[in-house]
Amino acid sequence: MSGKVYLGVDLGGTTIKLGLCDEQGNLLQTYEGPTGTEHGADVVLENIAQYARKLVEESAYTWEQVAGIGAGFAGFMDMEEGVMKLAPNLGWRDVPVRRILEEKLGKPVKINNDANVAALGEAWAGAGKGINNLVCYTLGTGVGGGVIIRGHIYEGFNGMAGELGHMVIVPDLEAIDCGCGKKGCLETVSSATGIIRMAKEAVARGEHTSLALVENIMAKDVFDAAKTGDETALRIINRAALYIGKSMALISVVLNPQRFIVGGGVSKAGDILFDAIRKYYIEHAQETVKEGVDIVPAILGNDAGIVGAAGLSLRA
Amino acid sequence: MSGKVYLGVDLGGTTIKLGLCDEQGNLLQTYEGPTGTEHGADVVLENIAQYARKLVEESAYTWEQVAGIGAGFAGFMDMEEGVMKLAPNLGWRDVPVRRILEEKLGKPVKINNDANVAALGEAWAGAGKGINNLVCYTLGTGVGGGVIIRGHIYEGFNGMAGELGHMVIVPDLEAIDCGCGKKGCLETVSSATGIIRMAKEAVARGEHTSLALVENIMAKDVFDAAKTGDETALRIINRAALYIGKSMALISVVLNPQRFIVGGGVSKAGDILFDAIRKYYIEHAQETVKEGVDIVPAILGNDAGIVGAAGLSLRA
Repeated sequence: MSGKVYLGVDLGGTTIKLGLCDEQGNLLQTYEGPTGTEHGADVVLENIAQYARKLVEESAYTWEQVAGIGAGFAGFMDMEEGVMKLAPNLGWRDVPVRRILEEKLGKPVKINNDANVAALGEAWAGAGKGINNLVCYTLGTGVGGGVIIRGHIYEGFNGMAGELGHMVIVPDLEAIDCGCGKKGCLETVSSATGIIRMAKEAVARGEHTSLALVENIMAKDVFDAAKTGDETALRIINRAALYIGKSMALISVVLNPQRFIVGGGVSKAGDILFDAIRKYYIEHAQETVKEGVDIVPAILGNDAGIVGAAGLSLRA
Repeated sequence: MSGKVYLGVDLGGTTIKLGLCDEQGNLLQTYEGPTGTEHGADVVLENIAQYARKLVEESAYTWEQVAGIGAGFAGFMDMEEGVMKLAPNLGWRDVPVRRILEEKLGKPVKINNDANVAALGEAWAGAGKGINNLVCYTLGTGVGGGVIIRGHIYEGFNGMAGELGHMVIVPDLEAIDCGCGKKGCLETVSSATGIIRMAKEAVARGEHTSLALVENIMAKDVFDAAKTGDETALRIINRAALYIGKSMALISVVLNPQRFIVGGGVSKAGDILFDAIRKYYIEHAQETVKEGVDIVPAILGNDAGIVGAAGLSLRA
């Protein structure tokens, strides 16, 4: 096959996923292997290099066609310098990832954080295709986010743009402590963790809910209960949606994006969640900023990380 | 004199101000004349054209050296098309400003709204010189704003980015109606209008304050009273500062700008206001986003509009 291709690496604590994309962001080939976190940074980076070569070998493309390589990580990094400052899930501190990978691979490498990379994946080839200005939410264990401006990831001064989970949005009287040290962050109510906490509290309060019969409540149990009309579950999802909608209304007067994309495990709740988010967004957003703006689910799922990483060379 | 120059127009309801800048944003020459609002859009646009020619004639530069012309207006506009959709202070609706000015002047023209233009002026040649990512607040009758990303104005999908005055930030229990139709907007507490309202309410409540002796309270009276230690005045300025600081903390996790610039009449309150804004920002902002971020007063004053308008050709 002819043409340039772009290689993306999604580095997780247990698995490294890799993908090859064309210039439009279409995912052509994938590969995955164990991270080997326990062997330290040198081995992990060597694994990335080996898997990358294998990915390309098994594809219809040659190594020469690889025009750029990108990698997404969880943690704090200096993106300009390509240094991983702190990656708690890998146990890394000050690892010059970009330089090491460029030496091993002989290609230009870009790194970025996983939330930004997932946002870029959706923007480039997913639910945001063709939209230049958008904001992505990832509702998982925490709430992450990414800001795409003129088609490119916007990182901000310290690389902290898009930390949407730490918007302080819950009123003081209802706010609880967030892991970040503040109170009332979006993440405390709209993450899977927040939803599970609210469910457990409702059960502990003795609310009449089918969730009382579930041994170890997961976010999915709350969605399932909501779909059967369980009022406690509906109220919890509604509350998660309220603060997402309110946070979007705030973002709209600052950034006025054309589209909000919502992904991550919690987004699997589907219409119950999205209908409520849209209702609260419309209720709280300024008239002038909401015209033509939509709120849609992410569509790339777990592939967003490798597609976005592949896109870093073109649109970081 | 050699080199390219840029011409900026700040169109107000009573006066048109014009300025000529070099490529670094230094203001070389100014001119101003009456707007002639009462004679309608045709006359106003012809006035702009005549004043622009006179400005250049009186300068050390030639018309040929003018590389671009920009104009800032108050109102809603379609920036892509260069059409003023609605300018309440001029009584205009759907005026194709850019086309008309380009015909009259024979040069490329860009238009933008006054808050964005003032932000660009400060970013290009004022308190944000050399800083690529910043957010400007203009605290006047209302609260306006502008977002500068990578040195350029960021307008958003509907041209509504930077409408910072309409961030809903005051808790429900204390929120009052905003002119925009929502409740609890930043503008209700942190604009001159908001400060005057709080002062009048305090006097009406019978608070022991020197403001009770002022016949028609203006924002400046509140600043002056605060400087003499008047507790009511200090509390009002503190409240205005609290919500500005909180709004900056929210913006920081979304955009992570390097600098906040605060201008407009209310910013004349000086250190009393800025010290409080900085205190509340530090108190409310995430640890990771506030490192190295500063909050500074605007420095161009009334010239920000003409300098920013001149910069539109280079950095819109």
